[in-house]
Amino acid sequence: MREVFQQELSQVKDLLVSTSKEVTYAIQGATSALLNADLPLAESVITHDKAIDSLTTDLDELLITILAKQQPVARDLRVVLSALRISANLERMGDLAKHIARIATYYPEGRLGETTELYEIFAEFTENVVDLSEQVTRLLETEDVAIAQRIAHDDDIVDSIHARVFEITLADDWKGSRRDTVNITLANRFFERFADHAVRISEKMEYLATGDWNA
Amino acid sequence: MREVFQQELSQVKDLLVSTSKEVTYAIQGATSALLNADLPLAESVITHDKAIDSLTTDLDELLITILAKQQPVARDLRVVLSALRISANLERMGDLAKHIARIATYYPEGRLGETTELYEIFAEFTENVVDLSEQVTRLLETEDVAIAQRIAHDDDIVDSIHARVFEITLADDWKGSRRDTVNITLANRFFERFADHAVRISEKMEYLATGDWNA
Repeated sequence: MREVFQQELSQVKDLLVSTSKEVTYAIQGATSALLNADLPLAESVITHDKAIDSLTTDLDELLITILAKQQPVARDLRVVLSALRISANLERMGDLAKHIARIATYYPEGRLGETTELYEIFAEFTENVVDLSEQVTRLLETEDVAIAQRIAHDDDIVDSIHARVFEITLADDWKGSRRDTVNITLANRFFERFADHAVRISEKMEYLATGDWNA
Repeated sequence: MREVFQQELSQVKDLLVSTSKEVTYAIQGATSALLNADLPLAESVITHDKAIDSLTTDLDELLITILAKQQPVARDLRVVLSALRISANLERMGDLAKHIARIATYYPEGRLGETTELYEIFAEFTENVVDLSEQVTRLLETEDVAIAQRIAHDDDIVDSIHARVFEITLADDWKGSRRDTVNITLANRFFERFADHAVRISEKMEYLATGDWNA
């Protein structure tokens, strides 16, 4: 029984890691599409989100089967429940990458690149959320909670860029159209939420190490 | 054992219903603060969100204890897992009400009310999200999945208002400042997400009736 359970948990881990890699692929594509006005890439990210949804559904089904068949207790139970929550976070990260890709499709003319300061800001955003996503994969793979600190650090940078984007769009010298203001406000929110989900995942991994559900 | 389990499930239900009532209270307060430029009300919603977080934490702890002690299988297991997901949805709805209240604090001068069309649109938004929140409580209380249809209907209205708000802020005759555009874009997103979580909860309740996890 124990051996079967360990085998199933290793399947869970593999699925979490694969999903996290797909999320990284999605956020890389979405941000690159946004920065380079790459419409086909944006469309492919949007279509590909179904694959992430399907991976998280498989994961949830596997976890429910494990709970029903193995009836885990104590730490094993916490592992399964945390995996369920992490699955939900990854699913949302995929959605947010899709939302960012959708905004890229509104700018086939690459307008975002016209405002140099904003382009640089979004390039920095991109670097940080892609790194966050890669760190989540590493954390799920290695279970090394020291990675949580790097995630927290990246998230702090994302938060400060988030605040800076507000300042830019509200500044007197802002030259974007109203449509730009709306889309940049939304993209700004999506980046911030994406990072937030990465932090939630790292909190769940820390919880597994410490036992504090609300770590 | 079975009797204890039923008793604990009824505790779960009570906690879900109380949390849902607190969420309704929060969204009522947040939207009323936004429409009437009621700063003290907005501040009280922001402070009160901690109570919702604490209720969902209690709920999660209870659910984990039930899983560990009772080792439920089949339908009982699905009930517990759905409750965990619903708890997460309610927690997010509380957060979104708090975000809306935060936007209200940026408009102590009641500026939102100056633009008649937008005021009416937000009044309609308010009516629908408060109704959604109340229907969620009723659904959790009665477990009558027919309520899910009303929730879906309210959500359709919210989606159409959401699209309308974009049209208004992007129209040529829009008289709001850039700050208004940014805050209205965000509020618009928060309303839409709030409704989305209500739909997720009703899907979970339908799942309990049908057994389809991704209903």
